[in-house]
Order: sequence, then C-alpha cells, then structure tokens
Amino acid sequence: MTKLATPAAAPSPAPPSRPAVESVIATLTQEFGNLVVTAAATREQHGNTASWLESEPPDAVVFPQCTADVQKIVLTCAAAGVPIVPFGTGTSLEGQVNAPLGGICVDTRDMNKVLAVHAEDLDVVVEPGVTRKQLNEYLRDQGLFFPLDPGADAALGGMAATRCSGTNAVRYGTMKDVTLALKVVLANGEVLTTARRAKKSAAGYDLTRLFVGSEGTLGIITELTLKLHGIPEAIAGGVCPFPSVEAACNAVISTIQIGIPVARIELLDALQVKAVNAYSRLSLPEVPLLFVEFHGSEASVAEQSAHFGEIAREFGGGPFDWATRAEDRTRLWQARHDAYWAAGALRRGTKSVASDVCVPISRLAECVVATQEDIAASNLVAPIVGHVGDGNFHLGLLVDMNDHDEVVRAKALLERLVERALAMDGTCTGEHGVGQGKMKYLEAELGAPALAAMAAVKAALDPAGIMNPGKIIACR
Amino acid sequence: MTKLATPAAAPSPAPPSRPAVESVIATLTQEFGNLVVTAAATREQHGNTASWLESEPPDAVVFPQCTADVQKIVLTCAAAGVPIVPFGTGTSLEGQVNAPLGGICVDTRDMNKVLAVHAEDLDVVVEPGVTRKQLNEYLRDQGLFFPLDPGADAALGGMAATRCSGTNAVRYGTMKDVTLALKVVLANGEVLTTARRAKKSAAGYDLTRLFVGSEGTLGIITELTLKLHGIPEAIAGGVCPFPSVEAACNAVISTIQIGIPVARIELLDALQVKAVNAYSRLSLPEVPLLFVEFHGSEASVAEQSAHFGEIAREFGGGPFDWATRAEDRTRLWQARHDAYWAAGALRRGTKSVASDVCVPISRLAECVVATQEDIAASNLVAPIVGHVGDGNFHLGLLVDMNDHDEVVRAKALLERLVERALAMDGTCTGEHGVGQGKMKYLEAELGAPALAAMAAVKAALDPAGIMNPGKIIACR
Repeated sequence: MTKLATPAAAPSPAPPSRPAVESVIATLTQEFGNLVVTAAATREQHGNTASWLESEPPDAVVFPQCTADVQKIVLTCAAAGVPIVPFGTGTSLEGQVNAPLGGICVDTRDMNKVLAVHAEDLDVVVEPGVTRKQLNEYLRDQGLFFPLDPGADAALGGMAATRCSGTNAVRYGTMKDVTLALKVVLANGEVLTTARRAKKSAAGYDLTRLFVGSEGTLGIITELTLKLHGIPEAIAGGVCPFPSVEAACNAVISTIQIGIPVARIELLDALQVKAVNAYSRLSLPEVPLLFVEFHGSEASVAEQSAHFGEIAREFGGGPFDWATRAEDRTRLWQARHDAYWAAGALRRGTKSVASDVCVPISRLAECVVATQEDIAASNLVAPIVGHVGDGNFHLGLLVDMNDHDEVVRAKALLERLVERALAMDGTCTGEHGVGQGKMKYLEAELGAPALAAMAAVKAALDPAGIMNPGKIIACR
Repeated sequence: MTKLATPAAAPSPAPPSRPAVESVIATLTQEFGNLVVTAAATREQHGNTASWLESEPPDAVVFPQCTADVQKIVLTCAAAGVPIVPFGTGTSLEGQVNAPLGGICVDTRDMNKVLAVHAEDLDVVVEPGVTRKQLNEYLRDQGLFFPLDPGADAALGGMAATRCSGTNAVRYGTMKDVTLALKVVLANGEVLTTARRAKKSAAGYDLTRLFVGSEGTLGIITELTLKLHGIPEAIAGGVCPFPSVEAACNAVISTIQIGIPVARIELLDALQVKAVNAYSRLSLPEVPLLFVEFHGSEASVAEQSAHFGEIAREFGGGPFDWATRAEDRTRLWQARHDAYWAAGALRRGTKSVASDVCVPISRLAECVVATQEDIAASNLVAPIVGHVGDGNFHLGLLVDMNDHDEVVRAKALLERLVERALAMDGTCTGEHGVGQGKMKYLEAELGAPALAAMAAVKAALDPAGIMNPGKIIACR
C-alpha cells in the first residue's frame, strides 16, 4: 500500500484586519439591519459542528433574501478583502462551513422559495435554501419527486456545492447529474448563469459542473434548476441478511453488473445493525444486511426483487423479504437514516466522526473487510454503512475525545482508510467533499498537475481568494 | 422572439510566423520522421470537411503513438507559439478541427489501443483514437457495450472533447455522464489525470467534466476511462407512425414523463422518411415517424413496448409494430444512421449542412413545427431528425452553394433556428458543440459573465492560447 506523502502546508491568504471586518459588518448592518447577526451563539452555530474538526465561527452571519442581496454582500466583502463562507444547513462533514480566517457567513436559510415547477419538463427552479424534504413536500401532489437523499435534510444549494449524493445515487446519480443549471454570484459580484433549461447542451465549457462540488470556493449558488422524476408507480424493498460483509458486497457487484436498476442498495455491517436495533427498536438479525429498494411498474419491481433474491441466495444470503407497503419501507429507511445517531448511541459520551471513501466496486469487499480488520486491530469502535452500489462506504468512528491515545489511533485509522482506498484506485471522498478535512489527500489522489489546474481555475475566478478560503485547495 | 445581438468580432491571437512554423515542423520531423506529414492532400483531409464552414487546413499533421509523444509535440509547439489542433476522425460538425491560424494537427489515429477492460467495474480504459465501433467489437464477447452512438464511427477522444451524445443518450447519458476519468496533456506539456476510477467522487473541482466538451481548447485527451453497460438481455424496438410532428412530439413527452426508460426515441419528419425510403430501399409510411428502442429483460421490454404503444394511440399514432429480432432492428437503425446521407441524396449536387438545437421537451413540438414552417416559408429543403427524448433535433439543410440567394436564405434560417431555441430556454447546440460555427451565439445563450468565466478558465490553463485557438471562446 503506497504511503501518502506528507502534504505541504497549505498556504492561505492572510486574515483580514479587524478594522476591515468591522467596517464590512457596519456596512452590511446599515443595508440589512437585524439580518446581520454577530451574537456569539449564532456565530458558533455557523462554524463547523458536524465533525471533530475544530469549529471556526465567522465574524458575522448575514441572511440574504435574494440574489441581489448576495451581490451586495459579496461586493462589500470584496472591497475590503474579507472572506465569505456560504452556508446551507451546516450539515457538511469536512469543515466546509468553517471560517478559518473569520469573515462573513452567508446563510441562505431565507432564500427558500420554489420558483417554478416545469412538470412537463421534469425540472424545478429553486432558491438555495430550499431543503430536499421541503422540495419533496411541495412536489408530492404533482406526482413528482427529487431523488437525492443524503440522510440529513440538507439545503439544495449546499447539496450542489458539495456534490452530494446519498442512498439513491446508484439509480439517479449525484448532484452533478441532476443539476441542469445554476445561478452563481461570483467573487466580483457578477451573476453568472451556467446553462439554459434544455436537458443537454454542448455549448461551451461545463460551468454547471465546475460549480457543483466547488464548495463555495468559486462563488455562491443563488438559484438551481434541478431534474425531477415521476414518483414511481411501484416501490418495493426490504432487508437481506448475509453471512459476511464479503458475501453482501459480492451480491451487490452481481446486482450492478447484471444491470438490475436498483434504486438503493445499502450495506450495514453487524455492528451498525446492532446500533440500529437499539436506537430504532427493531429486531433485525445482527449480521451484515443489505437494505434494498426497487422503483418501477408493479411488474418490474416484482421482477427486480425476485432477481435480486436469487443473486443473494447465490452468495449465501437471504431470505430476501420484500414488501411494497409504504409503512414498512418508511420504518426501515428511517432506521437507515438514523444510522448516524444510532451509532453515536452505541457509546455514549463519545464524538461521532463520519468519514467516507469510494472505490471501484470490484475492490469493495476487500476494502470493507480490510477496514473492519483495521478497526478491530486498532481497538476502536466504528460501525460501517455504505452506498455500496457505487462502491462508497462510511465509517462512523466513535471516539472518546478525552482519551489522547484513542484519538491518535482514530486519526491514524482514517489516514489508512484513505491510503487503502487510493491504493485500490479509489477516491478519498465519494460524497462528503474535501472541505478542510481532506485537503491533504488531494495531491496523492490526483497528482500535482490536477491540483495546479484547480488552483489556476480558483485564481482565475477568485483572484483575491475571498470565497470560502482554506477549503479544497490552497489559495494563492 | 428575442433577436440575437450582433456578436462582437472574436479577437484571436496572431498567427505564428512562418519561420516559427517551419522550425516546429523541422523539430518534429527530426523526432517523429515520416509520422509528420505536410503533403497538401493530408493537410486538406485534416481541415474541416463536414460542414459548409471554409476548410482551414493545418500546416502539418503529426501522428503520435503515445502520451509521451503528445507531450513532446505540445512542448515543441508551445516553445514556438505555434497552435495545436487535436484530431480524432474529423467528423465534428462545427469546424472544431479547422486551423484558422495554421499550426500542427495532432491526429490520434494511431493511439488506438484498448488499455484495460474492468468487467467487474463496468469500465474500460482506452486511448483516444479508439472508435466507438472498434470498442464495441472488442467488448462484445465479454457481454459488455459502450452505449453512446452519434451515428458516425467517431473516435472516443473526439467524442469526449465535443461532449457527444447521440441516439442512446436519452437512456445512457452523454459523454459527460459516461466519462469517469481523463488523461490530458496540458498546454504546458504536463500530463493531468482528472480522477480515479471510483464511480463517484467529491474530491475537488470536476476536472473530468471541465475537459469533456472543451473541444481541445484546454488540452489534448490522451486516455479515457469510460463507463460500460452489460448488453441488455432483451432489446425490442420498432417504428411508430404519427399523423403530425406535433402528435409524435407529444407522445415522446408523455413517454418521458411517465418514466418509461426508453433507450432510443428518434423523430424523422415526413421528408426525412421519404429520403430514407429512397436511400435505404425501405417502404416506411411517409409520415412523421418515431423509431423507438427498449432495453431490459424480456418481460420488461414487452411491458415498455406495450405501454409506449398505448401512449402512441392516445395521440392518434400507431400501429406500433415492435420486434425483438436483431436483423429487423439493425436494418432500421442503419437506415436511421444513414439519414444524413439519405437527406443529401434528396437533392444531388447540394451541400448538406447539419445543425442542431435542443429545447426543454415541453417546447419541442412547438419548436419543430415552427421550424418546419420556417423552412417552407424560406423555400428551402431541410429534413428534420431528432433525439427527441432529450428535446434535441437536427436540420439537414440541403443547399445549392452556387445559388447565392439560397445560401443567404439558408444562413438566415439557421440564425432563426437558434433564436427560436434560445427564446424557448433552449441551447444553440445539444450535441454538435460550438467549434467555430456557434461561437457567435454563446453570449446570447449564457450571458457575458459566463463567457468571461470561460475565457478566464481558458487563459488560466492555456495562457498563450495555443490549444485549438479560435474555437468556443475568443482567446486573449
């Protein structure tokens, strides 16, 4: 296994002077009144709260109501060289919302309108603060849905910014696939539109996908046009037990290879199942499980379910009990989504640290098994859940932060997790993004020319380095 | 309908001096011997031959054998400020391979090896000169296929560079969706790898999709990792007649909305059917037709076909005769792919000019009908074919180039085609790309900030403007 080179310290722009920050806050307050908040509690809620990265709150939080407000904020900050950190729901997991140099957090909470539903075109135009659940509530009586589901009820702007995916991505793709167009406020205050509403285009560089996954480092997303799907005529799903993680992974590989259009296929290892049983009062068998869901016509979901059941049997799994009753499915998927909280409850008083990698699916079983062995050898507690149809899995490390030795072992485990994924031609993050937490792995993953290209693009679109500095790549 | 603003003349870098070009050719000849060709016939084959844009041949053509060769060529040209034009099979339709400033054409014909098939991961690593048919021949006995099918047997490097799509895109996506990773030689001679082989990643800016569709203006693709699919268990398809183009389009809209996972759904207007009958010796009814194909299990293609037949009936179409016999389908699709040649044969001695636009599918019927009316009012001959499941359609204008008035009317028609598509929130090109032919429409489509962002990215990655200058956006 290749050792990662020690990453060079990331040079960052200098923090702004205190008078510059004060002056920006005064100007914004004049413009936006009590929509500018400097109270400590609010600032702390807008630092990183979802990981063990140190929280670095902004100097102030401002709540724009529209794109023009965002432009004013950006122009004010740009004039003073004060950093800007965009904020959706703060559920990102790698410190994307931290403000290492201070500056102004732009919370899009109030930009939460669904602007247009084009039912015939299966698309919707939304403001960035609309959350995925809010959107699906809005769409339900039109028979439409937005498929991406990262667990948290994240804001769609943040989901685009972090190239989110989640449980349905194996069937419906990630945010890069479902985003048709974006409106973005650039570092110079201009509003850029990335694309028209046509389903495909070959008209120039793919600006849409340049901004998807850029984590606010190239601009602030103020409007999204997203693809929708019709609510499937039928949904079937269930839980399938396996004798080993390896058997479960191999069943997944076969399912994908044969081309069953599975909508979700999620692995929970035995420890995660134990946690889910305790937390969600279920009595699932405490062995590796696949949670599986199929979308289609009544006939097709029955056919898919039967076919999957046969595959599971080939690998010693099963029985695969599937149902089309919504209440059964809802209970299961709620339990799956509560996996993070359930894991936390396994070991009270610990910090729950989520990290993800993604590998080519042929290496998935090997990668998960080696990781489980590594967890055991490290004397750590870390249930595994995974969007295994994409080769993507998560550790939910439970760390006693008062035990220095355990913290050291946990950090070393996460380093080896990434090294293992890279050695298998995988990526250091399938869906959580880079933020601050994974910057040090990017060069090992992609090489110096790719990083230099990213830095050149960043410098081209944000020459002063004010947009979410200290994330993804070092600013110059 | 919004009139397009007259586009500003695109500033271009100055052409290189003749001695600079001579010196580059001498250096390359020393390195590559008779793989450097300056014969007029070869140069002319490497200018634009597929449209009515004037052909602008390069000063020399060189045939690299590997990535290191491409690096040497780029470094040699960069040192002398001589332009580089990448070349696949020369089937692009908007002048992408023209050399308006002269320079060196890099023909990847000999880089045609399939480097690795990862059957378990459903991906393949290829050199850029591999064509799609060559790849599918190679894959067939492993039960795998590469779905994208633009008609021409294009090289995969060129297909990625132009963000190609074609008949299967409605089901399998475009090159942006099926490209996992690229190796690219940059303007500074460095080799950049855009991504690992994991099926998804959130590790930094999406360099893969930055290069897909960049038409050689940011670098030369020297290796591609592409997603594959298992050859479907069953394929069904057939032809369905409709009383009007509008009825056909409305049936398409319903099919997509209901979520039938149609693999191909292609419109031929009555004139195109007439051309196909004559050219391919078929006896299809000379009315608007949809060519439709379904992929899946035996049961699912039967279900899909029956469901589509019902939809067609609702709109006065049908009967929809579908078959699963490969020979019937092959004959039909060959005829569909020969549509370009068939159209040309409608009016001997004319130039066949293909242009495409793409609109939100709800506007498709309106856009196609208005375009047909415009063709008639302009006294022109232009059959229409379309990848209508994506809202994308093509005119095959047949122009007597000796008739000045007709040429003027034809050019005006194509301008109005783009204006019409833009007025419907569509794009000036769904799949042919920008090249030289559609540069003038980009600002009207995307706005000045988007063009400025593209220009900034171009300048960041190719500061001297040597990579395929005069395409997509003006170099600085």
